[in-house]
Amino acid sequence: MADYKMVYLFGEEFEELQAKVKSENRELKDLLGGKGANLADMVAVGILVPPGFTVTVDTCNLYSAAGGKMPAGLEDEIRACLAEVEELTGKQFGDPSNPLLLSVRSGARESMPGMMDTVLNLGMNDAVAAGMIELFRNERFVWDAYRRLIMMFGNVVMGLDREKFEHCLMEVKKELGVEEDTAVGAEAMKKVVELEKEVYQQLKGEEFPQDPMAQLIAGVRAVFDSADTARAIEYRRIHKLPQSMRTAVNVQTMVFGNMGDDSGTGVAFTRDPASGEKVLYGDYLVNAQGEDVVAGLRTPIKIQELEEKNPAVYQQFLDICAMLEKHYKNVQDVEFTVERGKLWMLQTRNAKRTAQAAVKIACDLVDEGIIKGSEVIMQIDPDQLGHLLHSQFDPKAKAAATVLAIGVDASPGAAAGRVVFTADEAIEWEKQGEKVILVRRETAPDDVGGMKAAQGILTAVGGKSSHAAIVGRQLGTPCVVGCAAITIDYAAKQFKVGDTVVKHGDWLSIDGADGKVMDGAVAMQDSDIFLVLRGEMKAEDSPTYQYFHRVMAWADEVRALGVRTNADRPEDASLAILLGAEGIGLTRTEHMFFDDPSKPEEERLRTFQKMILAENSEERETAAAGLLPYQRADFYGILKAMDGKPVIIRLLDPPLHEFLPSTDADREELSRMIGKPAQQIADIARGLHELNPMLGHRGCRLGVTHPEIYKMQVRAIFQAACQLKKEGLNPIPEVMIPLVGSLGEFTICRGYTEEIAKEVMEAEGVEFEYLIGTMMELPRACIIADKIALQADFFSFGTNDLTQTCYGFSRDDVEGRFFDQYVKLGVFEQNPFAVLDREGVGELVRMGTERGRKTNAKLEVGICGEHGGERLSVTFCHEVGMDYVSCSPLRVPIARLAAAQAQVRKPR
Amino acid sequence: MADYKMVYLFGEEFEELQAKVKSENRELKDLLGGKGANLADMVAVGILVPPGFTVTVDTCNLYSAAGGKMPAGLEDEIRACLAEVEELTGKQFGDPSNPLLLSVRSGARESMPGMMDTVLNLGMNDAVAAGMIELFRNERFVWDAYRRLIMMFGNVVMGLDREKFEHCLMEVKKELGVEEDTAVGAEAMKKVVELEKEVYQQLKGEEFPQDPMAQLIAGVRAVFDSADTARAIEYRRIHKLPQSMRTAVNVQTMVFGNMGDDSGTGVAFTRDPASGEKVLYGDYLVNAQGEDVVAGLRTPIKIQELEEKNPAVYQQFLDICAMLEKHYKNVQDVEFTVERGKLWMLQTRNAKRTAQAAVKIACDLVDEGIIKGSEVIMQIDPDQLGHLLHSQFDPKAKAAATVLAIGVDASPGAAAGRVVFTADEAIEWEKQGEKVILVRRETAPDDVGGMKAAQGILTAVGGKSSHAAIVGRQLGTPCVVGCAAITIDYAAKQFKVGDTVVKHGDWLSIDGADGKVMDGAVAMQDSDIFLVLRGEMKAEDSPTYQYFHRVMAWADEVRALGVRTNADRPEDASLAILLGAEGIGLTRTEHMFFDDPSKPEEERLRTFQKMILAENSEERETAAAGLLPYQRADFYGILKAMDGKPVIIRLLDPPLHEFLPSTDADREELSRMIGKPAQQIADIARGLHELNPMLGHRGCRLGVTHPEIYKMQVRAIFQAACQLKKEGLNPIPEVMIPLVGSLGEFTICRGYTEEIAKEVMEAEGVEFEYLIGTMMELPRACIIADKIALQADFFSFGTNDLTQTCYGFSRDDVEGRFFDQYVKLGVFEQNPFAVLDREGVGELVRMGTERGRKTNAKLEVGICGEHGGERLSVTFCHEVGMDYVSCSPLRVPIARLAAAQAQVRKPR
Repeated sequence: MADYKMVYLFGEEFEELQAKVKSENRELKDLLGGKGANLADMVAVGILVPPGFTVTVDTCNLYSAAGGKMPAGLEDEIRACLAEVEELTGKQFGDPSNPLLLSVRSGARESMPGMMDTVLNLGMNDAVAAGMIELFRNERFVWDAYRRLIMMFGNVVMGLDREKFEHCLMEVKKELGVEEDTAVGAEAMKKVVELEKEVYQQLKGEEFPQDPMAQLIAGVRAVFDSADTARAIEYRRIHKLPQSMRTAVNVQTMVFGNMGDDSGTGVAFTRDPASGEKVLYGDYLVNAQGEDVVAGLRTPIKIQELEEKNPAVYQQFLDICAMLEKHYKNVQDVEFTVERGKLWMLQTRNAKRTAQAAVKIACDLVDEGIIKGSEVIMQIDPDQLGHLLHSQFDPKAKAAATVLAIGVDASPGAAAGRVVFTADEAIEWEKQGEKVILVRRETAPDDVGGMKAAQGILTAVGGKSSHAAIVGRQLGTPCVVGCAAITIDYAAKQFKVGDTVVKHGDWLSIDGADGKVMDGAVAMQDSDIFLVLRGEMKAEDSPTYQYFHRVMAWADEVRALGVRTNADRPEDASLAILLGAEGIGLTRTEHMFFDDPSKPEEERLRTFQKMILAENSEERETAAAGLLPYQRADFYGILKAMDGKPVIIRLLDPPLHEFLPSTDADREELSRMIGKPAQQIADIARGLHELNPMLGHRGCRLGVTHPEIYKMQVRAIFQAACQLKKEGLNPIPEVMIPLVGSLGEFTICRGYTEEIAKEVMEAEGVEFEYLIGTMMELPRACIIADKIALQADFFSFGTNDLTQTCYGFSRDDVEGRFFDQYVKLGVFEQNPFAVLDREGVGELVRMGTERGRKTNAKLEVGICGEHGGERLSVTFCHEVGMDYVSCSPLRVPIARLAAAQAQVRKPR
Repeated sequence: MADYKMVYLFGEEFEELQAKVKSENRELKDLLGGKGANLADMVAVGILVPPGFTVTVDTCNLYSAAGGKMPAGLEDEIRACLAEVEELTGKQFGDPSNPLLLSVRSGARESMPGMMDTVLNLGMNDAVAAGMIELFRNERFVWDAYRRLIMMFGNVVMGLDREKFEHCLMEVKKELGVEEDTAVGAEAMKKVVELEKEVYQQLKGEEFPQDPMAQLIAGVRAVFDSADTARAIEYRRIHKLPQSMRTAVNVQTMVFGNMGDDSGTGVAFTRDPASGEKVLYGDYLVNAQGEDVVAGLRTPIKIQELEEKNPAVYQQFLDICAMLEKHYKNVQDVEFTVERGKLWMLQTRNAKRTAQAAVKIACDLVDEGIIKGSEVIMQIDPDQLGHLLHSQFDPKAKAAATVLAIGVDASPGAAAGRVVFTADEAIEWEKQGEKVILVRRETAPDDVGGMKAAQGILTAVGGKSSHAAIVGRQLGTPCVVGCAAITIDYAAKQFKVGDTVVKHGDWLSIDGADGKVMDGAVAMQDSDIFLVLRGEMKAEDSPTYQYFHRVMAWADEVRALGVRTNADRPEDASLAILLGAEGIGLTRTEHMFFDDPSKPEEERLRTFQKMILAENSEERETAAAGLLPYQRADFYGILKAMDGKPVIIRLLDPPLHEFLPSTDADREELSRMIGKPAQQIADIARGLHELNPMLGHRGCRLGVTHPEIYKMQVRAIFQAACQLKKEGLNPIPEVMIPLVGSLGEFTICRGYTEEIAKEVMEAEGVEFEYLIGTMMELPRACIIADKIALQADFFSFGTNDLTQTCYGFSRDDVEGRFFDQYVKLGVFEQNPFAVLDREGVGELVRMGTERGRKTNAKLEVGICGEHGGERLSVTFCHEVGMDYVSCSPLRVPIARLAAAQAQVRKPR
């Protein structure tokens, strides 16, 4: 590691530091924090910034590693920098006759609102206060500054109860009979200082420290400690930042916006962060400190109004904003103070913005020649991009809505409709033009028809991989699952949540993006992009669509990683192509048994059930033959939709008992329809019952023991492809054998797949390329990947199951139970089902990829777990060297952008 | 690889070959097969062996790798060796005037009865037959030899239907009206030859080959192919031999035991293989070929009777036997032929023997100075050693018993008793002095009392890790599980198996070693060793015990690997110490909640249930406090029994819902006893219900979210240890945190464990050493082992769960469903729950061990899965460098011996 100091003046050794961090593959903000790096940067380019210095992030790391011990020599370095600041400002820290006051702020690599609040006015004590009164001739201002310091220091640095301090000012105001702070005069404010000192003494057991250096060092230590507050941990989790992220400390000379009407303070965005319009956007407060803006006690003026008050300063500010935008090639969020007519920039950072603004700003910055398209893509948060696609509630309507409960956010999107409790009802009502929300304890394959008919799905139990969630995402239907707060009474046709009773037919709204369940029909608005994609709007009529489209094109120029989609139906496949999918990474074949537009659904399900209930191989073959036409039609449709693009089709995966009826009545009905005694059906179902179905007789285990099913599916795939080939199209099927854990499983399934492919192609007289590969979803498969790759043409990592087996937990059983607690306690940095766990699961993925490629250089490697549409996971897939990621259609744009960003960060 | 020929004459380059194979870390039998190596060896030491040659195992590997193509040059090498044999014998292959006849035999590294049968008399054809008649003047003998060749060649080499050939002789006998083969004269035998030739032509579509060389080459090829017969695959599986094991081919000059009364053939053991007595044991058949001995058509004489018939040959044979025993330092199983008064040795191999014989022979060989104790241990099969310990059925009685069904062999041992269907009944009947077999669909924790009372346990469902199986093994109670053939009717108090109805109170016998369920009370016999260990017999009265004891002492001298036991109760721990355990590798704490000798079982279970049903942390703590005295007594007992030896105690592992009642009636009762509404109990139980309990909220996940339980257990452990310490004993507790998958889980649990340990020791005023470690049972734990080892004092691999998560299947759900088929299809070489899967699970174990040791050189590493008592798995643990293996008490001797053998093979 390069040799660093622990403390740097703003702008000190700027070029050298940049070179040093670069040589370590770091950025300046890794060393100085985001705020510190930008302050240094501003000083380096000559913008007027109150002098100060930054204690480095590395120093905070040392402090944490030493269990909270201040590193040796740190205080000396601080003193040395302080001396330089005194030199620059011509003021002395702690000198009553010419006092230097300081602020202390945290500043991690990424801005982290959860960390320590700013402490202002450090360096005041009784003597300094007296000196300042002499100096400024504004006693009230001085006492006000002092009482603020005591409160902030007591609360923020020492962790004492803020209310107790605030109470002092309230007491005095009560005594005076006034309501406004401004009505408190100098004497009274002095009284507040006295009272606060008493509170401090009382709560802390010692006097408020009069030694300015002691204040400063305590402030630095408090910033260090604040990296571990619960709020900071929570913030890092939500924003997917590593929990190991520490902070720098910025110590800066105080400037005062509250020194009269020629003073003031403001915050501004260089463009509108909501719409992206190129217009300065911000607030200014005359004669105030930054704190007052945040506190919202006084109403600020629009930043533009500053022009009238001080045209020179305003112009200067506009110039600086323009310069900063060009310098950072990005929209800035700045803080500044005007002290007696002099403009000081306190900080600048890249502005947070909505998704809508993000794509517009990106295009504008490119059009303005500020940045290239291949670079601007780094400014857009892929996770946010999804917001452009999902139907959303009108934000105002949603804010006003009554939230009944919050469940698990399983399939994003907003839905409003009338409550029904059965799939049949959902279908019926939908036929009558009603919008419905299907509310169930849980859903079963039989419910798919009703789920399709519903606007949204709400279940009382199940996690993000429950049946309802998976089908919801596949259908693109908003879905909230595992909403434990609701108690459904099917008999009474109603559910209760708390004291509220929601009845059959009542309106209900759910938001699958945050799990909220709301009373009534909350007003919605649709995404332009969808309207255009659906052909309901012209592209030229939608600026948002055009911005989106341009950004995506830039991303595609850059990225090395392919993006496919997970889709079971031709409609989904077509939508995914519109959204940029280059193939299908996962077609599940099991849902097809419940879902056929041309036939009554009953019929194919019954045939499938007949096959499961077959008592020998012959009976099973006969039943399978009955299913062949259905499956052939399924595969024909999807291969046609993806003409010329590879389509991975996964052979049957779930255990067979999932397809059998679970109630006596249903068994009786099935018995009547297929002519087997209900008792026998019950016996077979009981025989198939599993204690841990996730770990049961499923996937290729069925392909080995009941090959008739797989053989039928393979035959259907190749017959469909032959037909398309004859029609002049170009089908590229890739047959995926799921759940392989032993080489022999793959060998056996590959064996008959090849035989059938050959047989069908010979019979049909056509030829085409195809692949046979496996889904990598078991630790053992990753370990023996070198052996499997000798026989497999592709690997597709099923990281949902791989996460379950690597950790040894089932998502349905654990996610709602202890994941929140685990994140709070720091056991998980992130929910490993949301963000791929690099350390454990990722190591298996890496091992599988590397071992596989070692024996088969041509091996096609991808991922089809849900992680394929998540930013950090896509980055990992890029780094591991995969060929593609695959995700649900709506996440395709997210994956494209994340892949491009990964390539910019680590080109391959 | 050294440069080998493909074919070697018996004894050719003997010293050089030994040196060559040694340089490759192989043995001679790896190259020549067991039979070939011994033939070469016999020739080298000067024993008279019919000349011949061996085609190497490596050559068979080449053949297999080439997909069944004869390696280039092989035929030339065979011809060259054949020429040497012709030189040695002075005969010519295919020369009618002086014919050389050959036998062809398979011969793998380990003898494999499932492979190809011997083919005798190769080299005969019409011309040679005519020549032999001239030469031997014994026409019947010649035609008999020829018809045998045609049949053996047709059946064994060409795979034609043997019955069709046998039918020829039967036809002729019918025509002649005779019953005995010997009554068939020369002419008639010639007729048989003609008929068989016709059958051959008919079945094969071509004539019986007259070219002797073609016969020979076909024979060699057939031996190669026979390595892949279903029987061979099955044999390798049962005997845990690698499926990749191929075979050598031995081609040997025919000698004839059927050339008159001065000729004969025999097989013999140099000592009694059943009892181990030092007495020659075998059969001799005058004027016969080896085939006749095997066919059992004539009754042989005892080998000792040969002395009368030919004292010189007998003495010569005795000398050879003695010499072979000394040479191989082991009891031999030999085949020989006397041709016109001349003794030829056909083969020798180490004799198979019973466990009883094995230990006696071992001691005798040492006492006779033939071999050292540290070497003789290699001659005993550890798996077989268990037979010495388990109560067994009288073999004759068992052979005569009616086998009703065969289930899964879950806990070895024989049991006979009267059938009961509930745990309560088992307890009641046992109190009245009845022996009972508890028959259940499956068992639950509530049944443990009844399981203890029963002689044996039989369940209709569940695998080797089902509740019944685990408890059965822990209790040492014979147990057969997953016996799908029985249908229990609890209401009618009977079960059906096929047409047989077994009623409540009927006698039933089960053998937990082979899964057999037998009608009635099959007579039993007890093991001496147990009688001695239980103090019911004096050691000096039991030779078997003494032999066993000496063998174990030799094993202990040699082994590097420690052996601990898995035991939950002081009695089990004490027994294990008698059997040589050096500590406890796994004490499960959950069974303790159902099992306390001093208190009614209800009480502690109710307290535990109260804790589970607690609605907040306080209630839970109160309930936990109520359990503390019970647990303290548990740990006191087990630490006392293991005084001075380490005891690993695993904190609570199973999910909580396992402990709650599952029926309305039971819930009502619990409700009455603890005063919570039954509905609330049902609600909580439903809330705790899991779809995949194996992957649920259990292990340290409970320790993180409900720390009250673990804290109580830790407190109980340290209080118990303190008490013992004060009593002058030396407790060494090792606290094991189960199911750790993330470092944070371990950190949190270790944190409070250390705090409580410190607190308790300070309060009690004593100090002692203890360890805190984790059970390694998840792939992720193995991957992040380096990080865990920084905080953990020990790793104990829980290879049952690790196998389940690595493969992604649950033993209970899959073992009975498709494992047999997987083994038959070659997907598994072995059931991975029986023999540790080196390739997958083993790699995780190796990774965990290596990564762990890298960051913590002092890390104690062991295994506590059931594999810890299995020979091949123990070998793996030795090779990986573990400190110890841990297994159930009865398997401790097996592990000790297997560990010693591993050390001899690969010293560390």
